[in-house]
Amino acid sequence: MELWFTEHHTKNVRLSIKVDKQLFTKQSSFQRIDIFESREFGRFLTLDGYMMLTEKDEFIYHEMIVHVPMASNPDIKKVLVIGAGDGGAIRELCKYPAVEHIDMVEIDKDVVDACRDYLPSVACKLDDPRVHITYEDGLRFVRRKEDEYDLIIVDSTDPFGPGEGLFTKEFYGNCYKALTANGILVNQHESPFYPDDARAMQRAHYRIRECFPLSRVYQAHIPTYPSGHWLFGFASKGIDPLKANLSQWEKLELTTRYYNTDIHKGSFALPTYVKDLLGDENESQY
Amino acid sequence: MELWFTEHHTKNVRLSIKVDKQLFTKQSSFQRIDIFESREFGRFLTLDGYMMLTEKDEFIYHEMIVHVPMASNPDIKKVLVIGAGDGGAIRELCKYPAVEHIDMVEIDKDVVDACRDYLPSVACKLDDPRVHITYEDGLRFVRRKEDEYDLIIVDSTDPFGPGEGLFTKEFYGNCYKALTANGILVNQHESPFYPDDARAMQRAHYRIRECFPLSRVYQAHIPTYPSGHWLFGFASKGIDPLKANLSQWEKLELTTRYYNTDIHKGSFALPTYVKDLLGDENESQY
Repeated sequence: MELWFTEHHTKNVRLSIKVDKQLFTKQSSFQRIDIFESREFGRFLTLDGYMMLTEKDEFIYHEMIVHVPMASNPDIKKVLVIGAGDGGAIRELCKYPAVEHIDMVEIDKDVVDACRDYLPSVACKLDDPRVHITYEDGLRFVRRKEDEYDLIIVDSTDPFGPGEGLFTKEFYGNCYKALTANGILVNQHESPFYPDDARAMQRAHYRIRECFPLSRVYQAHIPTYPSGHWLFGFASKGIDPLKANLSQWEKLELTTRYYNTDIHKGSFALPTYVKDLLGDENESQY
Repeated sequence: MELWFTEHHTKNVRLSIKVDKQLFTKQSSFQRIDIFESREFGRFLTLDGYMMLTEKDEFIYHEMIVHVPMASNPDIKKVLVIGAGDGGAIRELCKYPAVEHIDMVEIDKDVVDACRDYLPSVACKLDDPRVHITYEDGLRFVRRKEDEYDLIIVDSTDPFGPGEGLFTKEFYGNCYKALTANGILVNQHESPFYPDDARAMQRAHYRIRECFPLSRVYQAHIPTYPSGHWLFGFASKGIDPLKANLSQWEKLELTTRYYNTDIHKGSFALPTYVKDLLGDENESQY
């Protein structure tokens, strides 16, 4: 028997992964959740048929969404994570002794429960005493907050479906308000390669730029996401990731498999066609 | 009707591209050559069923294999290109007024003829008066050369099939001999992501390192290659791409869509897992 999971990256491109078996499937109140077992990527999680993570390459996404902001400001103590029901971003955040409190706001409890059961290497730190989980729409949660978080990580699904509100100007404005004076907002920023993704990325980027005085974009190689070329948005009230003193991060001696202080700087060097999509402000200023 | 081209990136992963029609197919003396028309990627060339280039993303590969070495030494005058029958590397090289002579050595004349006919935006500079084409095995050609080229670009197929000899120690040693005192060797270096590719990459890298005093690796996002994470090898008798004076390149005012002087530096910043595969020497030394 051959069982293949196939995702359409566009109408005309599809990536297929051979599956050993389906471990879990559920239609939650928000989306369809599936977890599969595969030889090439280990277990992987899909929401509404879109790849969220695989055991083989999730370290790339989770390290890049967490360590870039954390290394940019060693004084981060209170963090809000929106989405991220799988726990991967939480796992990376829990590596920092200086972090005192993490609020995780996930709209879909079924995702968290499934990941606890079937993806323990990802969900392993959800019970860390610093982690406080709220099951609510991140958009609503953040509205009530003011001057509270040193870092907000938006680890959302794509800008359609349940994650749609997390790409609006209202949401970014509320994040700005919820952040402390040194606050940083990081979000997954889609891919620049396929035209529809690039337009969604561009729209979200312009909205963030209207809300924050400093806004940069960085990139990573994530083989199981469409095109493999993935962007992250870094916005702040002033902290510049390219002026960070990275020797402090080195002293922590954390174990990482993708992120390092060379990558920290190098990931902000964007191809010309991506710079053109983002507008002139995104000079990496080496 | 639906017509899909499918490439297995491993036994368990495949990328499929919707095809409008097949424009060309031929079994040459060396390999099967196909050119397809597609909505997403424009025309694309495959050899023995492996993706070589698409009109949509070939600029990434060709700019990165040419401009990184060319910007590292503005005095490059004589260049040897091995493989590259499509003409993409030649097109980028011809942008440099200082380049006086380009030898292109391609084993398979049928590839060149097919690209001239069906991929004119790629093959467009093959008739530049500085370009001299020899149809021969690159391995044999380079054996006869000594102290002749400022740059050798190895734009080969994978390390099996017709391109196999271009990943051997004997070949790298002959390249060293064929290069001038400031000589640079650049080659396509496979992907670090899937284990079989990574092992082939590692083997080739160690062989190059035994032959050249300076050896670095840089990366690019190439969506239609396996994993989308592609490496290039930069080896030289002394010229260091990270110490190049890139302002000279800026002054040329060449038009590029991927390469820029930020990317020049940033592309040498490798993920930790790739550094581990390559060994400690590959510090990017920002």
